[in-house]
Amino acid sequence: MPEAVNVPNKEDLLTALKRVQEYAHKTPVLSCSGINKIVGAELFFKCENFQKIGAFKFRGGINTIFQLSEDEMQKGVATHSSGNHGQAVALAAKMRNIPAYIVMPQNSTKVKIEAVRSYGAELIFCDNSLQAREDKLNEIISETGAHFVHPYDDYRVIAGQSTSAQELIQDYPKLDIIITPIGGGGLISGTALAAKYFSPRTEVIGSEPEGADSAAISLQKHRWTTIADPNTICDGLRASIGEKNFDIISKNVSTVFRVSDREAISAMKLIWERMKIVIEPSCAVPLAAIIKNKDRFKNKRVGLILTGGNVDLNSISELFKEI
Amino acid sequence: MPEAVNVPNKEDLLTALKRVQEYAHKTPVLSCSGINKIVGAELFFKCENFQKIGAFKFRGGINTIFQLSEDEMQKGVATHSSGNHGQAVALAAKMRNIPAYIVMPQNSTKVKIEAVRSYGAELIFCDNSLQAREDKLNEIISETGAHFVHPYDDYRVIAGQSTSAQELIQDYPKLDIIITPIGGGGLISGTALAAKYFSPRTEVIGSEPEGADSAAISLQKHRWTTIADPNTICDGLRASIGEKNFDIISKNVSTVFRVSDREAISAMKLIWERMKIVIEPSCAVPLAAIIKNKDRFKNKRVGLILTGGNVDLNSISELFKEI
Repeated sequence: MPEAVNVPNKEDLLTALKRVQEYAHKTPVLSCSGINKIVGAELFFKCENFQKIGAFKFRGGINTIFQLSEDEMQKGVATHSSGNHGQAVALAAKMRNIPAYIVMPQNSTKVKIEAVRSYGAELIFCDNSLQAREDKLNEIISETGAHFVHPYDDYRVIAGQSTSAQELIQDYPKLDIIITPIGGGGLISGTALAAKYFSPRTEVIGSEPEGADSAAISLQKHRWTTIADPNTICDGLRASIGEKNFDIISKNVSTVFRVSDREAISAMKLIWERMKIVIEPSCAVPLAAIIKNKDRFKNKRVGLILTGGNVDLNSISELFKEI
Repeated sequence: MPEAVNVPNKEDLLTALKRVQEYAHKTPVLSCSGINKIVGAELFFKCENFQKIGAFKFRGGINTIFQLSEDEMQKGVATHSSGNHGQAVALAAKMRNIPAYIVMPQNSTKVKIEAVRSYGAELIFCDNSLQAREDKLNEIISETGAHFVHPYDDYRVIAGQSTSAQELIQDYPKLDIIITPIGGGGLISGTALAAKYFSPRTEVIGSEPEGADSAAISLQKHRWTTIADPNTICDGLRASIGEKNFDIISKNVSTVFRVSDREAISAMKLIWERMKIVIEPSCAVPLAAIIKNKDRFKNKRVGLILTGGNVDLNSISELFKEI
C-alpha cells in the first residue's frame, strides 16, 4: 500500500468516519453538573474509555488496517507497544482476519499482555528500552514482511483518531473549545483537522504532563522537538510528539497547557468520584488543565476527549493516596 | 401525613414515577458483549450508580419527602444511616427546602460524612451500634418533631424504589428476568411490584451475600426472619429484610441466590474492567449470582439493577488484591 503522503483532507476524514463506524462503538458523551459547577464551564466528555479495547486507539487501528490491499493483508501487521496501541492493532487485525505481531517490553503489565493475547496476536517480548523495541520490530518485519502500523506519526492513523471529534462535533455542534491530551499527537492532530473542516469556530487546545511536554516545547521553539526520556505517571503519554503530528498541531492548535502528575491524578479522582466511570491517568490531563486555567475556559462549552480506561485496579489506590 | 397502609397499587407506582422523574436522572441502561459471552445470556445493566447521590436510594427519598404535607414540612425529616440513604434524605430535603437531621455512626467514612454535610443536612454523630443509632434518632425526633424516613420498610419508599425497574421495563419491555441485590428489601420489593403491574411475564429474582441472607432464610422458613449481625463486605447490604418488604417478596419473588463476598468482589472487578464504570461491592451481587448459576440464566434477557457507585477509592485496591 502506498503510504498516505498528504495531510488528510475533508473527504479523507469522512471516509475514515464511515470505515471506523462499521467496527467501533459510537461512544457516549456524558456531562456532570457537579464538575461544571467546580470549573465554571459546561463540559462534554466524549467517553473513549467505553470504546472497544477500552481506548480511542482502536479507531486509528481500524482506519489503517482496513486500508491494506488484499496482497498486503497476507503478510499481516506489526507494531511495538506496551499499551493500548498494541491492543488496537491486535483487535483490528483479528477483525480483518490477518496476522498481527506485537512487540512488547518485558515489563508490560500482565493485564495488557493478556489482552493482546486474547485478540489472537503473536506476542514477541523484548528488552524495555525504545531501541530494543525498535530493533526487535525491524527484525520481525524483515522476517515476515508485515506492515508496520505506527502509533501516531501516520496520516491514516491521524484520520482514524479524528473520528472521535467528528462524532462529538456532530452531536454537539456549538462547542467553543475541544481539549485533548497529547502523547505522540495522533489524537490531537486528528481532532484539530476535524474541527478545521467541520467546526471552524471551535478552538482546539492540547494538554500535557510536565514530564512529557514535547508538544509545548515544540510550539514554543516553533520547530519539531523530541525529548529523550518522557517521565510521567500518565503511561499513555510517555512519548514525544511525531513529526507529521507537530506539523498539523503547529497550524491548528492554539495552546498546549502543562499539568503536574499530582494535578492529573487529582482530576482523575474527581472524574471517578463524581462521574462513576473508570478512566486512566492520561485521560484526566485535559480536566486538570481546565481546573488549573479556569479563566481561560470560563462559561465556555468545552468538549473533552476521555481517551481510555485501562488501569491496573490492583494498584490504583496507591495513586489516590498520594493526593 | 398519614402513613401509607396498603401495598402500593399500579396507580401509586405511576404517581411515584412522575414524582421521581421530576428530580432524578433517568439513568442509562448499558450492555457489554464481553460479559454476555462469559455468562451466556443477554444482560441489561440499569445504572443507578449514575443517579444523583450515586445510588438508587435517591428515588425513595424523593417519593417520600415530596409527599409530606405543608405542615409536616416545617419540622423536617430525620433518619439514621452510615451510607447512601442518609445522602438521599439530605439531598431530597434540600430540594424541598426543609431541614434534615441525619444520625451517623462515628465510624462512617469521611467521604460519606462530607457528602451528607455538602447537602446542608444537620449531622448528629452517635456510637456505632444499631441500638445507639435508633436511640439517638428517637431523641432527635422527639426534640424536633421531624418525620422519620425509613430506609426500606415503608410503602412510599418502596414505591420510589420501583421507579428504576419501571424505567427499565419501559426501555426493554421483553425481559425474562430482573435481578437485584437485597439488603433491607426496598429495591427488590419495588422492583417486584413494577414487574407485577407492568411486565407480568418477567420473573424477579433476588441476590444476597451469604453473611446477610435474611431474605433467603425468610423465604425458606415461609416467615419473616431477621438476623442479628449481618456480616459482609457489601456495606450497602448489611441489614435484615423489612416486614413490609418480606410480605411483598414472599408473594412476588421466585428465588433468592446467595453469593460469597469473594464472588461479589470478583464480579465487581469484572464490571470495572470490562464496562469501565465505578460500582460499589453491593452492586455486583446480582452479576455474581448469575455467574454462579449460569444454567438458570442461559440465553435469557436479564435486567440487572446496578444500585450505586459510592466506594472509598483510597482503599479499593485492597479488595481486588484478595481475589
